[in-house]
Amino acid sequence: MYTQPELKKIIDTSLVNLAYNNESERLTDPVKYVLSIGGKRLRPVLALLACNMYSDKIDEAVIPVTGLEIFHNFTLMHDDIMDKASVRRGFPTVHTKWNVNQAILSGDIMAFMANDCLLQSPPHLLQKVFRIFNKTAIEVCVGQQLDMDFEKATIVSRDEYIRMIELKTAMLIATSARIGALFGGADDREADLMYEFGRNLGLAFQIRDDILDTYGDKKVFGKTTGGDIIAGKKTFLYVKAMEIATADQRKKLNELYTAGNDPAVKVKEVTDFYDQLRIRAFAESQMEDYHGTAMDFLEKAGAAADRKIELIQMAGSLMGRDH
Amino acid sequence: MYTQPELKKIIDTSLVNLAYNNESERLTDPVKYVLSIGGKRLRPVLALLACNMYSDKIDEAVIPVTGLEIFHNFTLMHDDIMDKASVRRGFPTVHTKWNVNQAILSGDIMAFMANDCLLQSPPHLLQKVFRIFNKTAIEVCVGQQLDMDFEKATIVSRDEYIRMIELKTAMLIATSARIGALFGGADDREADLMYEFGRNLGLAFQIRDDILDTYGDKKVFGKTTGGDIIAGKKTFLYVKAMEIATADQRKKLNELYTAGNDPAVKVKEVTDFYDQLRIRAFAESQMEDYHGTAMDFLEKAGAAADRKIELIQMAGSLMGRDH
Repeated sequence: MYTQPELKKIIDTSLVNLAYNNESERLTDPVKYVLSIGGKRLRPVLALLACNMYSDKIDEAVIPVTGLEIFHNFTLMHDDIMDKASVRRGFPTVHTKWNVNQAILSGDIMAFMANDCLLQSPPHLLQKVFRIFNKTAIEVCVGQQLDMDFEKATIVSRDEYIRMIELKTAMLIATSARIGALFGGADDREADLMYEFGRNLGLAFQIRDDILDTYGDKKVFGKTTGGDIIAGKKTFLYVKAMEIATADQRKKLNELYTAGNDPAVKVKEVTDFYDQLRIRAFAESQMEDYHGTAMDFLEKAGAAADRKIELIQMAGSLMGRDH
Repeated sequence: MYTQPELKKIIDTSLVNLAYNNESERLTDPVKYVLSIGGKRLRPVLALLACNMYSDKIDEAVIPVTGLEIFHNFTLMHDDIMDKASVRRGFPTVHTKWNVNQAILSGDIMAFMANDCLLQSPPHLLQKVFRIFNKTAIEVCVGQQLDMDFEKATIVSRDEYIRMIELKTAMLIATSARIGALFGGADDREADLMYEFGRNLGLAFQIRDDILDTYGDKKVFGKTTGGDIIAGKKTFLYVKAMEIATADQRKKLNELYTAGNDPAVKVKEVTDFYDQLRIRAFAESQMEDYHGTAMDFLEKAGAAADRKIELIQMAGSLMGRDH
């Protein structure tokens, strides 16, 4: 069995060894940049762990699942333009370091570099795996659209919010687990269980991200806390607060959220408001629910218990339990 | 044998019947819009003609080659952002009608909708055809990068220019012909001949486009003439003029091209300059050379002469010979 750090190293090496069209370094420099500034490699590592759960042999899966990481970084590069984000993983975003046009085009080529990796799947799995991946790629675009739409919407229900993060974040994590299982020789039923494991884990992961954006330790989290509040993003904290608030409180939160106050004041006022409604506890409970459901699906999967240890550990570390 | 209008109709129908993820009309409305405002459907029609050259059966090729048209429109949607183009085919561009973020994201989903079409290739051709397509997709991105780089470059040689239009325009046309031939059951040697036919045709087509941008009839061409000159784009006319001009003339053309004059004056002055050097005749001769080479490759292809008639006619109409 491979450990997470071993698999991360395999993916990092695979990313470094990627074949590039070298006719224009202007085009590929931002790709190399964005793939070199870190990241947990969550999706391909998860896929390889799922593969390894069913098979000792993971070699054939490495390049295809590297495509999941490239695809993910493609979405980040374009999302950062749309969200006007200037920092990612502590480094300037591509559209900031270069310009918007460069981030569009270097992002585009990454989508095809991801295809290129997927195309190296074993022929008997190619069509199946690529269709699963591609359906998810479309869903991720829909999720990003809903996320943008929600920024302008006054009211977003919790169900609508969950669906958005499911599409934008959870589906790719779910698909990574499913594809990994298929590469490991799992049948469709097993792959579906792994998909549900990944989907629930992805939902828990995104809710934790929302919690950390407001309540996280800046040093651990790697970005300034309160960013979502300043940007007026609809987060789990916000939609849950809106759900349980009285009409007066809803009006108040809406005012606080849309006011053009001093950012630090805005963050404090909204956070105080969340505290008053005990939103953090609600969010943590929801996160735990999804994490627990993920664990239930993993439990049901047909591999031996000792082949699941690394996945359980990884899922725990995504919930912040590795310290 | 199918005629061009029949095949165009088949592709138009295929585009209308495309499956959409309907969870966000905001995301897919711009896709439907851009696919509905016309276009010759050059690439898929060429692919089906190439298929039909080798086989009476084209059904299995229709959806996969529809992906070539979707991919092409994806590149147009993103290129129009980068080039700040406000009109395409006589209609407002997506980033003008909606906004830049929408054009980025609706463009992105088109790349995956194109994949989805390609994924419906017959299994025995899937990996081969998709790899050919995907290599070209990457080349098209490189071509767009070179095109953007050339706008800022003072000197662009004719060879550099030809390589740029080869990547940006000709490769996809070449690949359409190659993929079509493969769907028709052609072997690699035949498919390579069709690729070279398409590559040379694509080069001729782009040079004609450059000529028309300066010398075309606005009513026929569908966009205002002189756009390339106003935008300071490096075109075949420009690089050829720079190639044969004296040092003094080069200085003059560079001044004319970079001056912030009244656009109408700028267009007239640059056109007069081209006329003085007989650039139009040079360009038409170069276009004819490529067209002739394309015909030579088509001639070499192993199908019966009567199965090539529609392709010869289509190639002629791309050179403006259908009136």
